[in-house]
Amino acid sequence: MELKELERTYTELGGEVKKFKKERGKIEIGYRIRYSKKISEVDVFAFGLMSGDWNPIHFDEEFASKTRFAGRVVHGMLTTSLVSAAVAKLSGTAVLIETKFSYLKPVRIGETVEVVCEITEIKGNKYTLKAECFTEEKVVEGEVQILLW
Amino acid sequence: MELKELERTYTELGGEVKKFKKERGKIEIGYRIRYSKKISEVDVFAFGLMSGDWNPIHFDEEFASKTRFAGRVVHGMLTTSLVSAAVAKLSGTAVLIETKFSYLKPVRIGETVEVVCEITEIKGNKYTLKAECFTEEKVVEGEVQILLW
Repeated sequence: MELKELERTYTELGGEVKKFKKERGKIEIGYRIRYSKKISEVDVFAFGLMSGDWNPIHFDEEFASKTRFAGRVVHGMLTTSLVSAAVAKLSGTAVLIETKFSYLKPVRIGETVEVVCEITEIKGNKYTLKAECFTEEKVVEGEVQILLW
Repeated sequence: MELKELERTYTELGGEVKKFKKERGKIEIGYRIRYSKKISEVDVFAFGLMSGDWNPIHFDEEFASKTRFAGRVVHGMLTTSLVSAAVAKLSGTAVLIETKFSYLKPVRIGETVEVVCEITEIKGNKYTLKAECFTEEKVVEGEVQILLW
Protein backbone atom coordinates (compact mmCIF):
# COMPACT_ATOMS: atom_id res chain seq x y z
CA MET A 1 0.00 0.00 0.00
CA GLU A 2 1.24 3.47 -0.83
CA LEU A 3 0.97 6.75 1.04
CA LYS A 4 -1.25 8.07 -1.76
CA GLU A 5 -3.88 5.65 -0.43
CA LEU A 6 -4.04 7.73 2.76
CA GLU A 7 -4.64 10.82 0.66
CA ARG A 8 -7.45 9.11 -1.25
CA THR A 9 -9.12 8.00 1.98
CA TYR A 10 -8.62 11.46 3.52
CA THR A 11 -10.19 13.15 0.51
CA GLU A 12 -13.14 10.75 0.34
CA LEU A 13 -13.80 11.46 4.00
CA GLY A 14 -14.08 15.17 3.25
CA GLY A 15 -10.53 16.36 3.96
CA GLU A 16 -9.36 19.43 2.09
CA VAL A 17 -6.03 18.85 0.34
CA LYS A 18 -4.17 22.12 -0.19
CA LYS A 19 -1.75 22.62 -3.05
CA PHE A 20 1.58 23.71 -1.60
CA LYS A 21 2.64 27.00 -3.15
CA LYS A 22 5.67 29.06 -2.20
CA GLU A 23 5.16 32.78 -1.72
CA ARG A 24 7.32 35.04 -3.83
CA GLY A 25 7.32 38.35 -1.97
CA LYS A 26 10.43 39.98 -0.54
CA ILE A 27 11.15 38.68 2.94
CA GLU A 28 11.34 41.80 5.11
CA ILE A 29 9.85 43.18 8.29
CA GLY A 30 6.11 43.64 7.86
CA TYR A 31 5.87 40.88 5.25
CA ARG A 32 2.66 38.91 5.67
CA ILE A 33 1.57 35.41 4.77
CA ARG A 34 -2.06 34.37 4.81
CA TYR A 35 -3.13 30.77 4.69
CA SER A 36 -6.43 29.09 5.35
CA LYS A 37 -7.79 25.58 5.56
CA LYS A 38 -11.07 23.99 6.50
CA ILE A 39 -10.79 21.71 9.53
CA SER A 40 -13.03 18.70 9.01
CA GLU A 41 -14.03 15.69 11.05
CA VAL A 42 -11.34 13.68 9.25
CA ASP A 43 -8.64 16.14 10.34
CA VAL A 44 -9.58 15.73 13.98
CA PHE A 45 -9.52 11.95 13.53
CA ALA A 46 -6.15 12.12 11.72
CA PHE A 47 -4.77 14.22 14.58
CA GLY A 48 -5.98 11.53 16.99
CA LEU A 49 -4.21 8.78 15.04
CA MET A 50 -1.01 10.71 14.57
CA SER A 51 -0.64 12.03 18.13
CA GLY A 52 -2.63 9.51 20.15
CA ASP A 53 -4.67 12.36 21.66
CA TRP A 54 -8.14 10.82 21.88
CA ASN A 55 -9.42 13.33 24.46
CA PRO A 56 -13.24 12.89 24.40
CA ILE A 57 -13.70 16.68 24.20
CA HIS A 58 -12.73 16.22 20.51
CA PHE A 59 -14.49 12.93 19.77
CA ASP A 60 -17.48 12.30 22.02
CA GLU A 61 -20.34 14.69 21.24
CA GLU A 62 -22.47 13.58 24.19
CA PHE A 63 -19.63 14.02 26.64
CA ALA A 64 -18.52 17.34 25.11
CA SER A 65 -22.06 18.75 25.09
CA LYS A 66 -22.04 18.63 28.90
CA THR A 67 -18.84 20.68 29.24
CA ARG A 68 -18.53 24.44 29.16
CA PHE A 69 -17.73 24.15 25.43
CA ALA A 70 -21.24 22.73 24.88
CA GLY A 71 -19.98 20.51 22.06
CA ARG A 72 -16.86 19.06 20.50
CA VAL A 73 -13.89 21.27 19.65
CA VAL A 74 -10.83 20.90 17.45
CA HIS A 75 -7.49 20.05 19.09
CA GLY A 76 -5.67 23.35 19.73
CA MET A 77 -2.51 21.95 18.22
CA LEU A 78 -4.38 20.97 15.06
CA THR A 79 -5.35 24.62 14.63
CA THR A 80 -1.76 25.78 15.12
CA SER A 81 -0.40 23.12 12.74
CA LEU A 82 -1.71 25.52 10.08
CA VAL A 83 0.89 28.04 11.26
CA SER A 84 3.54 25.47 10.35
CA ALA A 85 2.04 25.30 6.85
CA ALA A 86 1.96 29.09 6.59
CA VAL A 87 5.65 29.61 7.42
CA ALA A 88 6.64 26.72 5.15
CA LYS A 89 5.33 28.88 2.29
CA LEU A 90 8.08 31.46 2.77
CA SER A 91 10.65 31.36 0.00
CA GLY A 92 13.69 29.38 1.10
CA THR A 93 13.50 26.54 3.62
CA ALA A 94 11.89 27.35 6.95
CA VAL A 95 12.62 25.33 10.08
CA LEU A 96 10.85 26.02 13.39
CA ILE A 97 13.01 26.80 16.40
CA GLU A 98 10.48 28.33 18.81
CA THR A 99 6.73 28.64 19.11
CA LYS A 100 4.50 30.34 21.64
CA PHE A 101 0.71 30.21 21.36
CA SER A 102 -2.27 31.33 23.41
CA TYR A 103 -5.48 29.47 22.66
CA LEU A 104 -8.20 32.10 23.06
CA LYS A 105 -11.38 30.51 21.78
CA PRO A 106 -12.47 27.02 20.74
CA VAL A 107 -12.56 26.05 17.06
CA ARG A 108 -15.50 23.93 15.94
CA ILE A 109 -15.30 21.01 13.54
CA GLY A 110 -16.11 22.22 10.03
CA GLU A 111 -14.78 25.74 10.55
CA THR A 112 -12.20 27.29 8.27
CA VAL A 113 -9.16 28.69 10.05
CA GLU A 114 -7.24 31.57 8.54
CA VAL A 115 -3.65 32.06 9.65
CA VAL A 116 -1.96 35.44 9.37
CA CYS A 117 1.78 35.59 10.00
CA GLU A 118 3.84 38.76 9.90
CA ILE A 119 7.61 39.10 10.11
CA THR A 120 8.47 41.27 13.11
CA GLU A 121 12.22 40.72 13.51
CA ILE A 122 15.15 39.52 11.41
CA LYS A 123 18.53 38.60 12.90
CA GLY A 124 20.81 36.90 10.40
CA ASN A 125 18.81 33.92 9.19
CA LYS A 126 16.62 33.88 12.31
CA TYR A 127 13.15 35.31 11.72
CA THR A 128 10.44 36.11 14.25
CA LEU A 129 6.83 36.17 13.11
CA LYS A 130 3.69 37.19 14.89
CA ALA A 131 1.13 34.46 14.25
CA GLU A 132 -2.65 34.71 14.56
CA CYS A 133 -5.46 32.30 13.71
CA PHE A 134 -9.02 33.36 12.97
CA THR A 135 -12.39 31.77 12.41
CA GLU A 136 -15.20 34.33 12.85
CA GLU A 137 -13.05 35.71 15.67
CA LYS A 138 -9.43 35.45 16.76
CA VAL A 139 -8.84 31.97 18.17
CA VAL A 140 -5.06 31.90 18.60
CA GLU A 141 -2.33 34.46 18.99
CA GLY A 142 1.35 33.81 19.29
CA GLU A 143 4.80 34.06 17.88
CA VAL A 144 7.13 31.70 16.05
CA GLN A 145 10.83 31.84 15.45
CA ILE A 146 12.24 30.12 12.41
CA LEU A 147 15.52 29.61 10.66
CA LEU A 148 15.29 30.41 6.98
CA TRP A 149 17.99 28.94 4.76
CA MET B 1 -16.94 5.63 3.92
CA GLU B 2 -16.31 5.76 7.64
CA LEU B 3 -13.52 7.30 9.69
CA LYS B 4 -12.45 3.79 10.73
CA GLU B 5 -11.29 3.40 7.12
CA LEU B 6 -8.65 6.06 7.77
CA GLU B 7 -7.46 4.09 10.78
CA ARG B 8 -7.20 0.90 8.71
CA THR B 9 -5.20 2.69 6.03
CA TYR B 10 -3.01 4.37 8.65
CA THR B 11 -2.28 1.05 10.35
CA GLU B 12 -1.55 -0.77 7.09
CA LEU B 13 0.92 1.96 6.22
CA GLY B 14 2.78 1.33 9.46
CA GLY B 15 1.22 3.89 11.79
CA GLU B 16 1.21 3.07 15.48
CA VAL B 17 -2.27 3.37 17.02
CA LYS B 18 -2.07 4.06 20.75
CA LYS B 19 -4.80 3.00 23.13
CA PHE B 20 -5.95 6.05 25.06
CA LYS B 21 -5.61 5.46 28.76
CA LYS B 22 -6.27 7.95 31.54
CA GLU B 23 -3.66 8.25 34.29
CA ARG B 24 -4.94 7.74 37.81
CA GLY B 25 -2.31 9.42 39.98
CA LYS B 26 -3.04 12.35 42.27
CA ILE B 27 -2.73 15.63 40.38
CA GLU B 28 -0.23 17.65 42.40
CA ILE B 29 2.99 19.56 41.88
CA GLY B 30 5.73 17.20 40.77
CA TYR B 31 3.26 14.76 39.18
CA ARG B 32 4.69 13.31 35.97
CA ILE B 33 3.19 11.83 32.85
CA ARG B 34 5.24 9.87 30.37
CA TYR B 35 4.00 9.04 26.92
CA SER B 36 5.77 7.76 23.85
CA LYS B 37 4.92 7.06 20.23
CA LYS B 38 6.84 6.03 17.16
CA ILE B 39 6.74 8.64 14.40
CA SER B 40 6.49 6.88 11.05
CA GLU B 41 6.47 7.95 7.44
CA VAL B 42 2.66 7.79 7.51
CA ASP B 43 2.52 10.27 10.41
CA VAL B 44 4.58 12.79 8.48
CA PHE B 45 2.30 12.31 5.48
CA ALA B 46 -0.82 12.62 7.68
CA PHE B 47 0.56 15.84 9.14
CA GLY B 48 1.04 17.12 5.57
CA LEU B 49 -2.57 16.32 4.66
CA MET B 50 -4.03 17.74 7.85
CA SER B 51 -2.04 20.97 7.95
CA GLY B 52 -1.07 21.52 4.32
CA ASP B 53 2.59 21.78 5.35
CA TRP B 54 4.36 20.04 2.46
CA ASN B 55 7.76 21.59 3.18
CA PRO B 56 10.25 19.47 1.18
CA ILE B 57 12.54 19.18 4.22
CA HIS B 58 9.97 16.60 5.44
CA PHE B 59 9.12 14.88 2.15
CA ASP B 60 11.92 15.15 -0.41
CA GLU B 61 14.92 13.04 0.57
CA GLU B 62 17.14 14.31 -2.22
CA PHE B 63 16.40 17.93 -1.37
CA ALA B 64 16.74 17.37 2.38
CA SER B 65 20.05 15.50 2.01
CA LYS B 66 21.62 18.70 0.70
CA THR B 67 20.58 20.80 3.72
CA ARG B 68 22.37 21.02 7.05
CA PHE B 69 20.01 18.31 8.34
CA ALA B 70 21.51 15.90 5.78
CA GLY B 71 18.17 14.13 5.39
CA ARG B 72 14.47 14.44 6.02
CA VAL B 73 13.15 15.43 9.44
CA VAL B 74 9.78 15.24 11.17
CA HIS B 75 7.64 18.39 11.39
CA GLY B 76 8.43 20.03 14.76
CA MET B 77 4.72 20.42 15.45
CA LEU B 78 4.15 16.72 14.82
CA THR B 79 6.63 15.97 17.60
CA THR B 80 4.90 18.37 19.98
CA SER B 81 1.45 17.01 19.11
CA LEU B 82 2.51 14.15 21.40
CA VAL B 83 2.53 16.66 24.29
CA SER B 84 -1.17 17.22 23.58
CA ALA B 85 -1.72 13.45 23.90
CA ALA B 86 0.29 13.34 27.13
CA VAL B 87 -1.71 16.05 28.91
CA ALA B 88 -4.99 14.56 27.65
CA LYS B 89 -4.14 11.54 29.80
CA LEU B 90 -4.50 13.53 33.03
CA SER B 91 -7.61 12.57 34.95
CA GLY B 92 -10.38 15.08 34.26
CA THR B 93 -10.70 16.98 31.00
CA ALA B 94 -7.65 18.94 29.90
CA VAL B 95 -7.88 21.88 27.51
CA LEU B 96 -4.79 23.75 26.27
CA ILE B 97 -4.61 27.46 26.91
CA GLU B 98 -0.92 28.20 26.32
CA THR B 99 2.09 26.43 24.84
CA LYS B 100 5.73 27.41 24.48
CA PHE B 101 8.25 25.12 22.80
CA SER B 102 11.89 25.27 21.78
CA TYR B 103 12.87 22.83 19.06
CA LEU B 104 16.41 21.80 19.96
CA LYS B 105 17.28 18.93 17.62
CA PRO B 106 15.73 17.34 14.55
CA VAL B 107 13.65 14.16 14.89
CA ARG B 108 14.12 11.54 12.17
CA ILE B 109 11.34 9.54 10.56
CA GLY B 110 11.05 6.19 12.34
CA GLU B 111 12.23 7.47 15.72
CA THR B 112 10.20 7.02 18.88
CA VAL B 113 9.56 10.21 20.81
CA GLU B 114 9.07 10.09 24.55
CA VAL B 115 7.25 12.98 26.18
CA VAL B 116 7.75 13.79 29.85
CA CYS B 117 5.41 16.35 31.42
CA GLU B 118 5.61 17.51 35.00
CA ILE B 119 3.18 19.72 36.89
CA THR B 120 5.05 22.80 38.11
CA GLU B 121 2.23 25.13 39.15
CA ILE B 122 -1.43 24.91 40.11
CA LYS B 123 -3.71 27.96 40.35
CA GLY B 124 -7.34 27.01 40.74
CA ASN B 125 -8.07 24.81 37.74
CA LYS B 126 -5.15 26.25 35.74
CA TYR B 127 -2.14 23.92 35.61
CA THR B 128 1.35 24.64 34.29
CA LEU B 129 3.46 21.73 33.12
CA LYS B 130 7.06 21.55 32.04
CA ALA B 131 7.14 19.53 28.83
CA GLU B 132 10.11 17.76 27.28
CA CYS B 133 10.46 15.43 24.30
CA PHE B 134 13.27 12.93 23.87
CA THR B 135 14.58 10.57 21.23
CA GLU B 136 18.17 9.51 22.00
CA GLU B 137 18.60 13.08 23.22
CA LYS B 138 16.36 15.96 24.25
CA VAL B 139 14.67 17.32 21.13
CA VAL B 140 12.09 19.73 22.58
CA GLU B 141 11.69 21.63 25.80
CA GLY B 142 8.83 23.83 26.77
CA GLU B 143 5.87 24.54 28.93
CA VAL B 144 2.13 24.20 28.58
CA GLN B 145 -0.73 25.69 30.49
CA ILE B 146 -4.01 23.83 30.64
CA LEU B 147 -7.40 24.11 32.20
CA LEU B 148 -8.41 20.92 33.94
CA TRP B 149 -12.13 20.43 34.61
